[in-house]
Amino acid sequence: MNTFGRNFRVTVFGESHGEEIGVVLDGVPAGLPLCPGDFTEDLNRRRSGARGTTPRREADTPRIVSGLYEGHATGAPLTIVFANGDTRSSDYSLFRDMPRPGHADYTAAIKWDGFNDPRGGGHFSARLTLPVTAAGVVAKKIVATAIEKEEAGVRAGLVEMGGQALPEGCAPVAGPEDELPEPWKSALESAMKDGDSIGGVVECRVGSPLIGLGEPFWDSTESLLSHAMFAIPGVRGVEFGDGFRAAAMRGSEHNDPIINADGDTSSNGAGGINGGITNGNPVVFRVAFKPTATIHKAQQTWNFAKEAVDTLSAPGRHDSCIALRAPVIVEAMAAIVLADLILV
Amino acid sequence: MNTFGRNFRVTVFGESHGEEIGVVLDGVPAGLPLCPGDFTEDLNRRRSGARGTTPRREADTPRIVSGLYEGHATGAPLTIVFANGDTRSSDYSLFRDMPRPGHADYTAAIKWDGFNDPRGGGHFSARLTLPVTAAGVVAKKIVATAIEKEEAGVRAGLVEMGGQALPEGCAPVAGPEDELPEPWKSALESAMKDGDSIGGVVECRVGSPLIGLGEPFWDSTESLLSHAMFAIPGVRGVEFGDGFRAAAMRGSEHNDPIINADGDTSSNGAGGINGGITNGNPVVFRVAFKPTATIHKAQQTWNFAKEAVDTLSAPGRHDSCIALRAPVIVEAMAAIVLADLILV
Amino acid sequence: MNTFGRNFRVTVFGESHGEEIGVVLDGVPAGLPLCPGDFTEDLNRRRSGARGTTPRREADTPRIVSGLYEGHATGAPLTIVFANGDTRSSDYSLFRDMPRPGHADYTAAIKWDGFNDPRGGGHFSARLTLPVTAAGVVAKKIVATAIEKEEAGVRAGLVEMGGQALPEGCAPVAGPEDELPEPWKSALESAMKDGDSIGGVVECRVGSPLIGLGEPFWDSTESLLSHAMFAIPGVRGVEFGDGFRAAAMRGSEHNDPIINADGDTSSNGAGGINGGITNGNPVVFRVAFKPTATIHKAQQTWNFAKEAVDTLSAPGRHDSCIALRAPVIVEAMAAIVLADLILV
Amino acid sequence: MNTFGRNFRVTVFGESHGEEIGVVLDGVPAGLPLCPGDFTEDLNRRRSGARGTTPRREADTPRIVSGLYEGHATGAPLTIVFANGDTRSSDYSLFRDMPRPGHADYTAAIKWDGFNDPRGGGHFSARLTLPVTAAGVVAKKIVATAIEKEEAGVRAGLVEMGGQALPEGCAPVAGPEDELPEPWKSALESAMKDGDSIGGVVECRVGSPLIGLGEPFWDSTESLLSHAMFAIPGVRGVEFGDGFRAAAMRGSEHNDPIINADGDTSSNGAGGINGGITNGNPVVFRVAFKPTATIHKAQQTWNFAKEAVDTLSAPGRHDSCIALRAPVIVEAMAAIVLADLILV
Repeated sequence: MNTFGRNFRVTVFGESHGEEIGVVLDGVPAGLPLCPGDFTEDLNRRRSGARGTTPRREADTPRIVSGLYEGHATGAPLTIVFANGDTRSSDYSLFRDMPRPGHADYTAAIKWDGFNDPRGGGHFSARLTLPVTAAGVVAKKIVATAIEKEEAGVRAGLVEMGGQALPEGCAPVAGPEDELPEPWKSALESAMKDGDSIGGVVECRVGSPLIGLGEPFWDSTESLLSHAMFAIPGVRGVEFGDGFRAAAMRGSEHNDPIINADGDTSSNGAGGINGGITNGNPVVFRVAFKPTATIHKAQQTWNFAKEAVDTLSAPGRHDSCIALRAPVIVEAMAAIVLADLILV
Repeated sequence: MNTFGRNFRVTVFGESHGEEIGVVLDGVPAGLPLCPGDFTEDLNRRRSGARGTTPRREADTPRIVSGLYEGHATGAPLTIVFANGDTRSSDYSLFRDMPRPGHADYTAAIKWDGFNDPRGGGHFSARLTLPVTAAGVVAKKIVATAIEKEEAGVRAGLVEMGGQALPEGCAPVAGPEDELPEPWKSALESAMKDGDSIGGVVECRVGSPLIGLGEPFWDSTESLLSHAMFAIPGVRGVEFGDGFRAAAMRGSEHNDPIINADGDTSSNGAGGINGGITNGNPVVFRVAFKPTATIHKAQQTWNFAKEAVDTLSAPGRHDSCIALRAPVIVEAMAAIVLADLILV
Repeated sequence: MNTFGRNFRVTVFGESHGEEIGVVLDGVPAGLPLCPGDFTEDLNRRRSGARGTTPRREADTPRIVSGLYEGHATGAPLTIVFANGDTRSSDYSLFRDMPRPGHADYTAAIKWDGFNDPRGGGHFSARLTLPVTAAGVVAKKIVATAIEKEEAGVRAGLVEMGGQALPEGCAPVAGPEDELPEPWKSALESAMKDGDSIGGVVECRVGSPLIGLGEPFWDSTESLLSHAMFAIPGVRGVEFGDGFRAAAMRGSEHNDPIINADGDTSSNGAGGINGGITNGNPVVFRVAFKPTATIHKAQQTWNFAKEAVDTLSAPGRHDSCIALRAPVIVEAMAAIVLADLILV
Repeated sequence: MNTFGRNFRVTVFGESHGEEIGVVLDGVPAGLPLCPGDFTEDLNRRRSGARGTTPRREADTPRIVSGLYEGHATGAPLTIVFANGDTRSSDYSLFRDMPRPGHADYTAAIKWDGFNDPRGGGHFSARLTLPVTAAGVVAKKIVATAIEKEEAGVRAGLVEMGGQALPEGCAPVAGPEDELPEPWKSALESAMKDGDSIGGVVECRVGSPLIGLGEPFWDSTESLLSHAMFAIPGVRGVEFGDGFRAAAMRGSEHNDPIINADGDTSSNGAGGINGGITNGNPVVFRVAFKPTATIHKAQQTWNFAKEAVDTLSAPGRHDSCIALRAPVIVEAMAAIVLADLILV
């Protein structure tokens, strides 16, 4: 279903080329200050237009239609909507007959008996991450009220792109407007020249959340964070702390020695979580994004009209690397989960 | 909270050294045939006692106390309980003062103001996976009723252990009673000799589930599966299909060409899921297990009684590689998620 | 929270004098035909303007901004919004200082630390029943697909008003545009002349729903229906079948004899429900509406500015009998609950 | 489903004549003191054996199998189970062929395709209120920690029985062991002599809960309380404050004047709730219980074996007035709802 969370609930709605997309936030604490300008930075980090992203350009101006009064959240559901503007639906009619490999064209039609809105991927479009990013702005404010230490905040950036690790000395790339390190630039340009796409890995770090967040068993902090991360289109893997490398370590290497009564540890292989509960160290995790499914390069797929295998060269405007726009979305999802845990 | 699922709901309860642990299953379809013998195989695959696992030996006989009548599920909640028998609580009193690095000792005490049951890890013990395994037996029966093709079923096995990949020609290891490939045996024996522990990676494959399972956005098949997987103690990462490797691929490599009107694809980099919805190909994912936290080898930690860093050499009985017992738990979790999606 | 339902989920948002109010419907079956005209009849039955209702006049034109494509539900969340037009917020500033007796002015301010939107009752306004009525239109269509017998449908009407029972031979009054029986007319006019208000009782009848709806225990059909009914502002009581009169009957009088293998009964004291499960007979229940809280007649209340008891004569436009507009809202709520039970 | 609540979750399981019935409580605050003796008083008030109740006698000793350690709740799920002892299943085999009028025999069989446990009503038995009563004991302790004023607590009693109001000067009857007022005694004896049953009305009063409990709209305090009340077998109506009588009042009569800055009111027609939110005055509501469905007196019903209408004279042991045992169950349900609202 399209609602997530227990005490901070996020309901998303909309299709890529429908009239509006938006989000209803339930459980926003009354009195939380909020103004339209609060959204600018994060929405800009998600915006397309930069090299490697789709040239589809949207104003993406949030309109808060409920839950805000005189600059503060009222306690009632806070609803943020965005108009869909720069749509070229004709680009997509083709995909009814020839579902894109790696895309939801086929499964959406199966799931919804062919009644799904096919324009721009409909409800399966990555455009749904726009209201999620807006929700993240509100969630970050809730998280900020509960941070204990100085090195606070939720911060994500690309640490791998096109199979290349972040070069030594480079900071993680926070969004498409950031300067890319040289090997990443080459990988991107090479893929674009071929009409192809590349993937990347986003690392997220939550500096010093409250100790004790998360629930035992089902609603472990990792369970909730991964649940939210895999809701982002294009995610293939999620790992915490040492992640998959932990499987190759010994306990004596991987365990984090506790060094004081605050639970601080001298390493952070656990990614700040033990037994599903935050231990006060930074929560650290990585999210793997696949290369964009829609590419110009010719691919084989089934042609339902011809009842035969056929060759598809996807027209339209696409991101060459969706991971470029992903960091702020990862942050938003992390903040949504943490806000929910904080408000429990 | 301790309940998971929408239409097939699993509520777990119990502590490692409490009187009983168990599970309440809500939504089991009336008429599902079930008998005590159905649990034997899966519970045996989880049982300890083999080399590399804790010598704690439990009968682990399931007692179905509600929801079953004359060999069939009644439609009412089905409750399965297990007695806790072979407990040696004195082994654990130490961990109140000296929380084990990598364990929930510290976070559980913080979370629950020191009222947590400390014996054997209490509610954070991996013993909670026993009722989960039992729930998985019921869930697998529900899944079996909805499988479309022949190569059916939920099947998991170890594909990496102690940092060593599965040797060519070896089948994944399904449980602790299976013969281990030589390099794994060495890795295990070496760690045991050192009083240390090792990790592993479990791969799970769901042969041909129904097409169209999963919900758009929040409740994508990946979101729900990863939510359940990260509820298993010791999990550090989850990836689907090509997983983290997908981030280093191009779209033209990673996308799976559709080869017929049933949605079958010639590769399965997507792990059987597009846009969060199953596409009819096998669902494939991998789960990384860290090395067991509790080890005999000396480690530094904080001593709350002495208010100083101290050295802990954990007494008691432990698994040297929890991943050995994990495959059937991964299967159970996968079946629980799929059953829920099927019953929606 | 502001979401209701398990498999058919209704999320409402908005304030009386905010920019927009609306509803997100999750779980609408893909392919359900829907057009703007479908809403006209029900929205008209809720509309004010007739004698006894507030003269606030709104166009109340539904705008479907997501989930609809080429005349059918897509399967994605269906969002319906309404603009708030004819607002006179100055009318309400008074109620911050002097909370209306019987209204949520005081409790809303307490609940939300004074940050609640006070204009027109904000999120506590009966205007929220507008999106609920629209949701009901969609829900009725889902219910219609599952009705078994001929005498189908969800139908509610007033059976008591101003303390007067429905005169013999009169049909229940379905909305404010219906002609009122004489004694009701008198009661209404008399109250209006005095600047006062009156209440009423709505009876709802669901003709022949599927047998077997409802869940045992917590989610009995009565539990879910009453949950939804008490969400309508102004409801004081809900009873099923013989209702409170059943408490004065003997079992031999109240029990409904089963007369055939379809479960039909010769009486319907149970209101069509046994053990929380529908038995195939009409579901019948009554909902008591209090008189409108806001009245022109002078009342005592606390004046927070003066810190003293004071006299309030509420200005503004009010309904003299909210029950007049309630039948279609009761129908909507009933349909929402039944749709959810049908889709489980 | 069989789980209720958001942050205080109650999962019930069991059948009347199964091995065990019980309840899992999730969200019990760690540190809450609890001992077996805490349950005695409430369980005694629910116990049968007194005049007018079934002679089935159960020890009903609660066994806490998880979530309790050294006299305090641990924070993990708290599970309470009861053995089913004094069962005479042969009494009930008859009702498969001849469903009792007014009982769930027919609907349970329809709902669960005939696989329902028919013994003693199975999961639809009022015996399920035993674990609910135990849950109420825990919930009352949570409520007690949040009560603001002196006249605290949740207290229910019979105010009508067999159609007779409580005689002037009599206190509400709190349970079957209480002395009944004369007209009630006569009504009961008369019905018993005829092999028939009678109903009653329970009034519940929550003295001074915290102000501000309840959520706007769907999860109004009335919605949640009525949801829980209608889960009790045999309930036909629920009303708050003036209840159904409010529908016959004018606003000027029904509205409660606010008399001070604490929100205290000079009357309590609202039953302590405005706009779904508690206003600090006592929460007052009434619950109508129908006469017991199962009676010795002959009734017509359908005989599925004979495929004809037939006459049933129910053998076995029954309550002549279930309402006698209901007050403590009403209290338990009220406490469960309030605990959930308090823990949000």
